[in-house]
Amino acid sequence: MPYFDSASAAPLHPVARQALLAALDEGWADPARLYREGRRARLLLDAAREAAAEAVGCRADELVFTPSGTHAVHTGIAGALAGRRRVGSRLVVSAVEHSSVLHAAEVHAASGGTVTEVAVDRLGAVSPDGYAAALDPATAVACLQSANHEVGTVQPVAEVAGLCGDAGVPLLVDAAQSLGWGPVEGAWSLLTASAHKWGGPPGVGLLVVRKGVRFAPQGPADERESGRSPGFANLPAIVAAAASLRAVRAEADAEAARLRVLVDRIRRRVARLVPDVEVVGDAERRLPHLVTFSCLYADGETLLHELDRAGYSVSSGSSCTSSTLTASHVLKAMGVLSEGNVRVSLPAGTTAEEVNGFLEVLPRAVAEIRARLGVPQAQESVPVAESVELDALGLRCPQPVIELARAIGTVPVGGTVTVVSDDEVARLDIPAWCSMRGHAYVGESARPVGAAYTVRRLR
Amino acid sequence: MPYFDSASAAPLHPVARQALLAALDEGWADPARLYREGRRARLLLDAAREAAAEAVGCRADELVFTPSGTHAVHTGIAGALAGRRRVGSRLVVSAVEHSSVLHAAEVHAASGGTVTEVAVDRLGAVSPDGYAAALDPATAVACLQSANHEVGTVQPVAEVAGLCGDAGVPLLVDAAQSLGWGPVEGAWSLLTASAHKWGGPPGVGLLVVRKGVRFAPQGPADERESGRSPGFANLPAIVAAAASLRAVRAEADAEAARLRVLVDRIRRRVARLVPDVEVVGDAERRLPHLVTFSCLYADGETLLHELDRAGYSVSSGSSCTSSTLTASHVLKAMGVLSEGNVRVSLPAGTTAEEVNGFLEVLPRAVAEIRARLGVPQAQESVPVAESVELDALGLRCPQPVIELARAIGTVPVGGTVTVVSDDEVARLDIPAWCSMRGHAYVGESARPVGAAYTVRRLR
Repeated sequence: MPYFDSASAAPLHPVARQALLAALDEGWADPARLYREGRRARLLLDAAREAAAEAVGCRADELVFTPSGTHAVHTGIAGALAGRRRVGSRLVVSAVEHSSVLHAAEVHAASGGTVTEVAVDRLGAVSPDGYAAALDPATAVACLQSANHEVGTVQPVAEVAGLCGDAGVPLLVDAAQSLGWGPVEGAWSLLTASAHKWGGPPGVGLLVVRKGVRFAPQGPADERESGRSPGFANLPAIVAAAASLRAVRAEADAEAARLRVLVDRIRRRVARLVPDVEVVGDAERRLPHLVTFSCLYADGETLLHELDRAGYSVSSGSSCTSSTLTASHVLKAMGVLSEGNVRVSLPAGTTAEEVNGFLEVLPRAVAEIRARLGVPQAQESVPVAESVELDALGLRCPQPVIELARAIGTVPVGGTVTVVSDDEVARLDIPAWCSMRGHAYVGESARPVGAAYTVRRLR
Repeated sequence: MPYFDSASAAPLHPVARQALLAALDEGWADPARLYREGRRARLLLDAAREAAAEAVGCRADELVFTPSGTHAVHTGIAGALAGRRRVGSRLVVSAVEHSSVLHAAEVHAASGGTVTEVAVDRLGAVSPDGYAAALDPATAVACLQSANHEVGTVQPVAEVAGLCGDAGVPLLVDAAQSLGWGPVEGAWSLLTASAHKWGGPPGVGLLVVRKGVRFAPQGPADERESGRSPGFANLPAIVAAAASLRAVRAEADAEAARLRVLVDRIRRRVARLVPDVEVVGDAERRLPHLVTFSCLYADGETLLHELDRAGYSVSSGSSCTSSTLTASHVLKAMGVLSEGNVRVSLPAGTTAEEVNGFLEVLPRAVAEIRARLGVPQAQESVPVAESVELDALGLRCPQPVIELARAIGTVPVGGTVTVVSDDEVARLDIPAWCSMRGHAYVGESARPVGAAYTVRRLR
């Protein structure tokens, strides 16, 4: 049963499992204690720190273990901001950071700080110029992910780190998605990562703070982990995390090359096999194992269920698959279609057969969903008026776009269709539909309930 | 090799190990995902929550899992204080809480809040009256441990919870040391605990917030664990924690009865076998497995090393065993001797033979250390002056007390010895020595360096 969501969590690497079992026996005691069980635990902790630091490319005393990647990000941002409080309170982040970064930014803004979001292009990448423009003398900290977790696009971290260095601003790199594949290049100042993304156990994150970077840990004091991560060390998991990082790295280049070919195949064949699909993210500068695409006129949740029934586990950034009914902020920032969104992230060891099976199932699943939703096959209708207004209030994604596609034939080329919708996602998906179908998106106007989105038929 | 420090960390319970292994296979995926691996993880998480809630005696939706007991305490106190911000900013804690509680209180005080510490008696217990006096209309939250982690004294939680209830103040109970032995009685409002204290794995704490208690999670938002504990759930460890809590509870009454006898024996025999020893804490209202005593004229670190060499792992609240060179705040608050301090906490399964072995080794170890330190055998000296002043500057615990013991014979009954010391611990240990040896502690006066502690010879 192929599991294609390693960007959420990867099954435990066999080396992690072995190390965990050994450390459960040898490393359960408090490493701060003076007796033999404590000294043994301390040796394991020190060795794990050395191994993790070597994989990151930092000194062991620059690296602490946290209870998760999210904790590493929260702690890292709070400590770096506090350490630079005298300089200023501006936090610069990209618009496509992981939610843990954006939530830390929200807290900073709520407590009076300033947050500047750097936009991304349609492939999901920031430009170094965008960061250069955002840095000012009051900038305390900048954050940039090494690669995007939803679309796989690799960010220009080394260039941005260079710019930050010139401006004297520490750059925090969230390397959660990429650390298993290799160290992060460039002169970054802080780095965070999460072990369960590379096949380590859950319960372990990394926070690296380069020597010389001002850092003031926030929250209640705790002497463990250099005062940067409170609580009793989760030592067996830490040992397993470090061992698996080393093991994963040993296989990384070969596995990346193999998975890159499989992902390229998915990118090409999805575009060919599924009508009205948008494969998103950068085709070249990307993570080796991850690809995301959006299927027009399909509902992400139903698509996930159909794929799950057929045995394929994938995730989605469609609004209907989130508990808050909002589309992925990454897809929004890129301005790409969010409906019928599917993220495929291949775990190490994925075979070509598994990928082929998925490529067989996917087009059928999409076609069935579209048939059920009554998607118009072509613009069969004849024009009935110069402009048409559709009441799509109460309809959820992908229905407003389906209504629009049905109606576009009822106006002549040059005519307009206006969709009145109270579904937030329409703001993203109607313009995306226009650019996919070759029509012009005229704009949006407020309505008492929802908004009106107007489209001009061009062909 | 007997390990007698289960109050720091207990070896993994066999049931925890089994459950952990099973959950590593079944529970590595993200429980928020819709596909089968995610649903399976969700089932495991829900079942673990039910089991833990049953052991605590709360509803499953009142309990969240945190990365450690320390995180549970920090999160619980911060959220409860914020939830009651409109009422006031007073936080009431006992003087003998775990450092995680006191550190959270420090942060509260540093950000403008008020902290009131309730004193304890010489056995380490708070009085309900002490809490009643501390509660006022501006009290936001009160905290009280279920039992003390260093001396084992059980606190009157139910009575204090009743008083807090009458005053409309939520009581947070840190149950880290007692939850494996049984549920916490009384109408508490919040409860915290730590799995590795009951034989579960590290990486799991519990935070319980009763329905109706105002609670406003602080820090960056995260939708997991009811918004109360950010980060990817450490599911295998959570499953193991819940399974072992249930298993430990099934054996708790019988094991408590057995260990209680062994601890009683240690209390009695240490007092008989070791001269000049103070066994501290309540002999009756106490944890079943824990006993602490302090040996006059001995140095805690050396004593720990001697016991470790003989094969016994124990911990200590002596200043020389802490990285900050300060004596345990618990011993300080109780006003008992801190030098030569030893905490013995027996893990489940400890045998009478192991305890007997320890009782054979201990008196020899103490005697050897005292001989090495040149401890006066009796008051052999003849009085030479009405009052004597000793320069003990630069000497570390237990040397100032040893100097005092040597000098007391050089003054007649009714005469005084003044010890000038810059060792912080002298303030605690010189009065404790007086009460153990039957002399009067006159008081302390400031000196340019350190302080002068004056003692009147009474016999």
